[in-house]
Amino acid sequence: MSERKVAIIGTGLTRFGEHWDKSYRHLIAEAGAKAIENAGIEGKEIEGIFGGTMASGRFIGQEHIGALIADHLGLNPLPSLRLEAACASGSIALRAGIMSILSGEHDVVAVGGVEKMTDVQSGEAGFALGGAGDQETELFFGATFPALYALLATRYMKEFGATEEQLAAVAVKNHANALHNEYAQFRREVTIDNVMNSGYIASPLKLLDCSPLTDGAAAVIIAEAEKAKEITDNAIEVMASEQASDTIDLANRKSLIELNATKVAAEKAYKKAGLKPEDISFAEVHDCFSIAEIFAIEDLGFFKKGSGAKATAEGKTKIGGEIPINTSGGLKGKGHPVGATGVAQVIEAYQQLNNQSDKRQVKNAKYGMTHNVGGSGATAVVHLFKRLGE
Amino acid sequence: MSERKVAIIGTGLTRFGEHWDKSYRHLIAEAGAKAIENAGIEGKEIEGIFGGTMASGRFIGQEHIGALIADHLGLNPLPSLRLEAACASGSIALRAGIMSILSGEHDVVAVGGVEKMTDVQSGEAGFALGGAGDQETELFFGATFPALYALLATRYMKEFGATEEQLAAVAVKNHANALHNEYAQFRREVTIDNVMNSGYIASPLKLLDCSPLTDGAAAVIIAEAEKAKEITDNAIEVMASEQASDTIDLANRKSLIELNATKVAAEKAYKKAGLKPEDISFAEVHDCFSIAEIFAIEDLGFFKKGSGAKATAEGKTKIGGEIPINTSGGLKGKGHPVGATGVAQVIEAYQQLNNQSDKRQVKNAKYGMTHNVGGSGATAVVHLFKRLGE
Repeated sequence: MSERKVAIIGTGLTRFGEHWDKSYRHLIAEAGAKAIENAGIEGKEIEGIFGGTMASGRFIGQEHIGALIADHLGLNPLPSLRLEAACASGSIALRAGIMSILSGEHDVVAVGGVEKMTDVQSGEAGFALGGAGDQETELFFGATFPALYALLATRYMKEFGATEEQLAAVAVKNHANALHNEYAQFRREVTIDNVMNSGYIASPLKLLDCSPLTDGAAAVIIAEAEKAKEITDNAIEVMASEQASDTIDLANRKSLIELNATKVAAEKAYKKAGLKPEDISFAEVHDCFSIAEIFAIEDLGFFKKGSGAKATAEGKTKIGGEIPINTSGGLKGKGHPVGATGVAQVIEAYQQLNNQSDKRQVKNAKYGMTHNVGGSGATAVVHLFKRLGE
Repeated sequence: MSERKVAIIGTGLTRFGEHWDKSYRHLIAEAGAKAIENAGIEGKEIEGIFGGTMASGRFIGQEHIGALIADHLGLNPLPSLRLEAACASGSIALRAGIMSILSGEHDVVAVGGVEKMTDVQSGEAGFALGGAGDQETELFFGATFPALYALLATRYMKEFGATEEQLAAVAVKNHANALHNEYAQFRREVTIDNVMNSGYIASPLKLLDCSPLTDGAAAVIIAEAEKAKEITDNAIEVMASEQASDTIDLANRKSLIELNATKVAAEKAYKKAGLKPEDISFAEVHDCFSIAEIFAIEDLGFFKKGSGAKATAEGKTKIGGEIPINTSGGLKGKGHPVGATGVAQVIEAYQQLNNQSDKRQVKNAKYGMTHNVGGSGATAVVHLFKRLGE
């Protein structure tokens, strides 16, 4: 195994939301330039680019995203590539960037995620997103993503007696957190009543159980740890970067009350970092739908299977609770530009561990986790972080 | 730098062509299973999957390709991801797989490339492929890929006095090579007259100057070199894996008579391997259009700028010539399933270096090169290979 370590040395984020006045390439350039400036380096110090995007071909008619990023950041002829694992594209871009540094191939690289989702009609976007599941056995028969997660929610509620009100508590908490995040798409509080009355999208999931369509980009600069120390005092070490997969379709899963890929990736990450769930100070998890956050906090080991919905309703995952979840506002409150999400989660972890989160700050944050899911759980990626040298 | 080395230990290829009876996932499974069998390992020995695909969202409505591959090869819960750099997607998948081994993260991984292009009408396919260039400043105004390469050909011919007949010699040679490749799409010879009379697609490029739309998949198993030696006597060492980028659109290029990304990637690869162009025994280069092969053999250093078309017409790039180019038949003769092409090039190099190429065999093949281009040259990837331990 490599003795090298990797650390995050700078971050850049666009506002998440509906960017009618900015194109995909504007979003990339904004996040990338901010990250370079935040790291306090010059573009010419970067040696490679790893960009996560899910469905640019269908959202904006553009592939060859790596080259587009290098070009619009003025970083030709750097090697630059796109990575895709549906909504986990940002996290696998980070993972590939990390491996490029561990390999000795690079010392400093940029990792970005971006999606421009509002340039097509929402039905078309739903169809593009359906490509994250099995288009032959699910999407073709009308099962878009709300429907797939509704099936998981239905099975979970039947098994454990969880209620729609308990699921609604996920959205209420995440909107409350997003209120204090200036980059969030939805900076407004919602109540349990608001969620309950927001209308079914796919029963039992209502509009406010669902994350939105979002435009946005996120970027981080990562570096070999010794190099990182020379550059900044705020470097955050990557303790573990793990990924696992499961069947592309729900019908072939062994269980519908958990995401096995999350469990496998988390287990490997805890082992690599020498940590247990109770050591984690906070986690950004993949709440594409409220039920997804409940699965995540159980599958990551924070709560016993079947107890996550109740725990959320009791406030145990709020800032100040047992384990603060999605302090950024999560996908629900902050928004979910699918390719950017995994990288944006990491930026929240970076800021929390550097005590830069203001009203969202978790006290004594020592170990941070990010958890990013592709599709209905066919990919899961887990990262663990701490301050470098602590 | 890592002291580890990487070697190819097995290969698998589907026939290239129009597969009306096989889906994308059948093609993946066929190539992947063949590669595992050819390497003489079991699936459970594989630790990660790197899949190259350009535009699956637009060709078959499916994203989340990494998970799909793992699932249909029965390799869950392995980490699996998709990499995209337009027509160079296969080569950057290999590059990422190589880095994962150099990093110490993995010892044995599968690298695949696949594209199913014939399930949409050819105009729609051309539009999807146009996403490899700048969709805002090129494709939107009607400049599909034949048009972009026709601009390059026009400029080159004006500069150096090259003729359409000289360009046609590329197609004639590559069809002649493909005749002896049982996996090739076009196993028939063509003459200069055939090419000249095949009708303009985008002047000066005619139908037979253009590579076809193709379905196909290719896979290789790669391993850390010490591990590779334990597994097989036919391991091929990766001496260098280099990538470079350029502007996404032609209009912003500094020169239209070369691809700078090819030059940069090749220079780095030669340096890393300690080789010069004259050391190379054969090369698989990116002949998406006849003019592209001429650019490649010059930019890779085999022929002086401006002399490649004449050299080709004189037979210098035939098997048995100064430097055999595209012994497989190239993209023109073998076919060009875009995501699979880079991996298929590597399979030709593997077989040539293992003296398995039968009637296409290059005598005393010692050092092999592959060269894969994305779009009109915004990405170029160069790999160098030799027999492991020689």
